[in-house]
Amino acid sequence: MKRRTFVRNTSLAGLGFSVAPGLSFGSRNNTEKLQIGLIGCGLRGQNHLELLLKRSDVVIVALADPNEEMIERSLKMFDSNAAVKPIIYNRGDYDYERMLETEDLDAVIIATPWEWHSKQAIAAMNARVFVGLEVSGAFSVEECWDLVNTHLETKTPLYFLENVCFRRDIMAMLNLVREGLLGEMVHLECGYQHDLRGVKFNDGVTPYNSGVELGDKGFSEAKWRTNHSIHRNGDLYPTHGIGPVSQFIDVNRGNRLLTISSMASKSRGLHDYIVNHEKGGENHPNAKIKFNLGDKVTSMITTSNGETIVMHHDTNLPRPYSLGFRVQGTRGLWMKVNNSIYIEGMSPPHKWENDSPYLEKYDHKIWKEGLEKSVGAGHGGMDYFLMESFLDCAMNGSEIPFDVFDAATWMSLTPLSEASIKEGGAVRYIPDFTNGLWINRKNNFALNG
Amino acid sequence: MKRRTFVRNTSLAGLGFSVAPGLSFGSRNNTEKLQIGLIGCGLRGQNHLELLLKRSDVVIVALADPNEEMIERSLKMFDSNAAVKPIIYNRGDYDYERMLETEDLDAVIIATPWEWHSKQAIAAMNARVFVGLEVSGAFSVEECWDLVNTHLETKTPLYFLENVCFRRDIMAMLNLVREGLLGEMVHLECGYQHDLRGVKFNDGVTPYNSGVELGDKGFSEAKWRTNHSIHRNGDLYPTHGIGPVSQFIDVNRGNRLLTISSMASKSRGLHDYIVNHEKGGENHPNAKIKFNLGDKVTSMITTSNGETIVMHHDTNLPRPYSLGFRVQGTRGLWMKVNNSIYIEGMSPPHKWENDSPYLEKYDHKIWKEGLEKSVGAGHGGMDYFLMESFLDCAMNGSEIPFDVFDAATWMSLTPLSEASIKEGGAVRYIPDFTNGLWINRKNNFALNG
Repeated sequence: MKRRTFVRNTSLAGLGFSVAPGLSFGSRNNTEKLQIGLIGCGLRGQNHLELLLKRSDVVIVALADPNEEMIERSLKMFDSNAAVKPIIYNRGDYDYERMLETEDLDAVIIATPWEWHSKQAIAAMNARVFVGLEVSGAFSVEECWDLVNTHLETKTPLYFLENVCFRRDIMAMLNLVREGLLGEMVHLECGYQHDLRGVKFNDGVTPYNSGVELGDKGFSEAKWRTNHSIHRNGDLYPTHGIGPVSQFIDVNRGNRLLTISSMASKSRGLHDYIVNHEKGGENHPNAKIKFNLGDKVTSMITTSNGETIVMHHDTNLPRPYSLGFRVQGTRGLWMKVNNSIYIEGMSPPHKWENDSPYLEKYDHKIWKEGLEKSVGAGHGGMDYFLMESFLDCAMNGSEIPFDVFDAATWMSLTPLSEASIKEGGAVRYIPDFTNGLWINRKNNFALNG
Repeated sequence: MKRRTFVRNTSLAGLGFSVAPGLSFGSRNNTEKLQIGLIGCGLRGQNHLELLLKRSDVVIVALADPNEEMIERSLKMFDSNAAVKPIIYNRGDYDYERMLETEDLDAVIIATPWEWHSKQAIAAMNARVFVGLEVSGAFSVEECWDLVNTHLETKTPLYFLENVCFRRDIMAMLNLVREGLLGEMVHLECGYQHDLRGVKFNDGVTPYNSGVELGDKGFSEAKWRTNHSIHRNGDLYPTHGIGPVSQFIDVNRGNRLLTISSMASKSRGLHDYIVNHEKGGENHPNAKIKFNLGDKVTSMITTSNGETIVMHHDTNLPRPYSLGFRVQGTRGLWMKVNNSIYIEGMSPPHKWENDSPYLEKYDHKIWKEGLEKSVGAGHGGMDYFLMESFLDCAMNGSEIPFDVFDAATWMSLTPLSEASIKEGGAVRYIPDFTNGLWINRKNNFALNG
């Protein structure tokens, strides 16, 4: 008998929130600790573990991962933190199913290779366990519908763990935009521009910049992520861009993404990396691999409310990291790439201003108040705030800022971009995964900041 | 009897250069001055006049413009320069035809409102006068074919006056790219991001930032340019972006533009400007105008050689000027917006470098040698180098860097983007205006720099 309690809560239902009628999560007694399981304890899962092990209000009950080395690394983290050892589910790829059946979990975090995300999220929802799902793109639009439909059937919430929404500058700009300083939103840009060559290939032992192996001979992400660059051509990782952008224009909450069209450049970067690497060369077996992924994939997205979005994907070429945010309204614009802002009537006419004073002035409350605690957390501290928010939703039933509808919408951009590219840039329609609920839903992310 | 000499010159014909077989321009006796006419002597025409009046190798024989005030302003410039007064053709909009019939011109420069460009260029080619055509977008693809076909029939060259190709940083980057520092080209960005609100509207007397009038009540560009924002929705001014980008990837010279798809944001900026201006307001008659032009128009372009291009058009919103160049190859990228470059193996790993030392090192010869003479010329001096090049082609028969095929290709992006937007972002095919000549043509711009 599982100890989770199901409580009637119909008040939210009419608003279309992701906590569905008839069932409420987060109704635990406050003295109880949250019982959490982790599916996937590779390097990303270990980031989450590190944050969770610091908390006194969470117990990590179980880990599921078929990889012995990653389990061992994770268990060492429990030792270092003098934490009670979790139950281990490592009997093959599907042993997470046994975990979901056996353990009495309040929540589960899924941090596995992309191809497992939806399958495992659906299994967790079917087991009525509150889901924290790591980000990725989807493989098909149907997969996205499956997530949504499972949520609707099981009334089990899903929190899509899009950490960049919590980036400090993004949250400050969100404050600034909500104060009206940039006027009405008109155009936004975003993307994932990250030289991943040293991630997609390694020596099978060291995760970064250590060689030209992949698949079975690779380690960590090189084991599985690189295969996507061989077989697929599209925006493979859209959420770090579209997630934050969606907050500025209330996607799925008074607005929605309508269409996408995409194009891809030639593919040169990954082959060149293998050929030019000291451990590679023209005669290395991997020099024969044909990579489908264009080095630069660009997508144009339109919305119901008339904003336009340009989204970049650029992971095969030498370049500095940049998510390339541009937030433009009728009164001015912010561009991250030059750390600059222009606001009519405030900035000197036709001149960029450095964005620092604005970022400071509009710094979000959670950053001001939580800064010390966030130090050392992943990705410049933003992972700390993401975990805080996730646990708040799982423990207290707070409204989920990025829910299953957002997950489905954002993830769908990957297969839609693949189809568009294959069709020469044809416009693809983005489904309304809310089935109309978006018209009345309200943006609840980072209010009162 | 006109004095221009037609000289056989078949050597260039097979290569598809724009000086067609059987006819050579630029065969004048070196002691003769170039006899030049100007169609359109508004503010842009006067820029050209200013440069021409400084030269001892050019005689400005005639001016054609129906606008008395602009003729007067121009004639004052002749006085100031103690130059022989030109013949004036000001008997209505079509008096340039009489000028082309009457005068014995070696060359003509066309600097009129956009809707006159092709008509006048075609008339000049039919009169066998070497054409310098100011930049604009076209109204139809057929108009672009008319330019090309007239050139082929008359064997008269056309120089498309795209000045930004001569921008100092662009020419330096062209040197750098040709040295291979960025590797093989992969992705480029460009555009026209220029807050034109103070140009599209004025008080009918002062050209810039003086009011909210347009059309008959406006002055200079407000007279005609703003009407395009009322009626059209597309990339209305593509050449300052696509012109320079074309040089990096040899468009029409070993490569070609294949497809374009475009999207437009909502239209708010121009209406807001009228309403919020101290001389405008909610009750100003112009507050009722519906502007078709989206505030932000974005286009994606693909090429035969597999590069991708993003092109921006952003002229209705408050913002600093930016053509937004990005030049990205397999070894690194340059971005103008942050004045930064990254070159693998030279830049510190994953870090931007300021582009100044590179711009200095790869500064083009014509800038190093011509810098003093360029001081004071329009648009930061680049107009000087453009005029030098134009006159060199007109006088000496040098190969034209941006010819009628380039004009047609670049101008066609405007109607193609309008159609794509109207079709929800559908992909439009960009015609091959060279009819295959692009395969063997060679880029001749700014070589040996």
